[in-house]
Amino acid sequence: MSQVILDPIGEIHSPYKKCKDIPIQGRFNNKVEAWIELKEKYVKGLKDLEKFSHAIIIYYFHKSEKENIQGKPFLENQNHGIFAIRSPHRPNHIGLSVVKIKKIKDNKMYFMGVDMIDGTPLLDIKPYIKYFDNRKDVISGWLDKHFKNGKMPDKLTV
Amino acid sequence: MSQVILDPIGEIHSPYKKCKDIPIQGRFNNKVEAWIELKEKYVKGLKDLEKFSHAIIIYYFHKSEKENIQGKPFLENQNHGIFAIRSPHRPNHIGLSVVKIKKIKDNKMYFMGVDMIDGTPLLDIKPYIKYFDNRKDVISGWLDKHFKNGKMPDKLTV
Repeated sequence: MSQVILDPIGEIHSPYKKCKDIPIQGRFNNKVEAWIELKEKYVKGLKDLEKFSHAIIIYYFHKSEKENIQGKPFLENQNHGIFAIRSPHRPNHIGLSVVKIKKIKDNKMYFMGVDMIDGTPLLDIKPYIKYFDNRKDVISGWLDKHFKNGKMPDKLTV
Repeated sequence: MSQVILDPIGEIHSPYKKCKDIPIQGRFNNKVEAWIELKEKYVKGLKDLEKFSHAIIIYYFHKSEKENIQGKPFLENQNHGIFAIRSPHRPNHIGLSVVKIKKIKDNKMYFMGVDMIDGTPLLDIKPYIKYFDNRKDVISGWLDKHFKNGKMPDKLTV
């Protein structure tokens, strides 16, 4: 298996300028809006995306300078495997967020559910398809105890 | 924005040896099992992942040799933007699937919900977290008409 070379398809513009300002997951602050600026050559790739309510965006954690194999998530002091947490300090530094599409205009997609820092390189946009991406009977490991009865934990920023 | 260089963290072993055998989305054939073979150096990164029922796996569509900006999905004859479909022939060729974790042992993760070809390079594993990744009130664009009343379409392989 050789290396994979990717070219960012655009950039994410976000009100969060520093890592410490970012909420742990954007869906918990739905008042904040960000936008994707897609490279002009990909504009036609957005056709019909505005008919979806949500998108999955895949990006590069460009500010992360370390690669951990285990880590403590923001919500607790326990160590977990890097593949059991969503930390940016992971092999390949790939980030993924489900976001709510607000508007698409020309090469810009405006969205809510922001948990990326300004200037984040964008690698892909996929439509969120409930038949594939929504699951029932999900057990969420170490997180379930922090969301008792579906209630959000108090601590939502790093 | 410069290029991003990634090193696969492992490989996916799947019973699907040819692209044409693969179901459009693995969740529609839950009898098929595949496994991830993680590079040894990342084994400790799997700690506590088995406490999750599902994972998001991110991989590289290494068999795709073209990059389209629009395409016709398997289910219909209409053209859509590449970011409104899940085609492998997309910029950066990144694939994403939600899979059901069956068992983790040493450097292997066995899972159901297979829609990758044998030998696919793996880029990341993330825990599927219902509080972040499950959404209500999802509108799934051009796909909704194919899943009337949540019923699966008849055509499920390419």
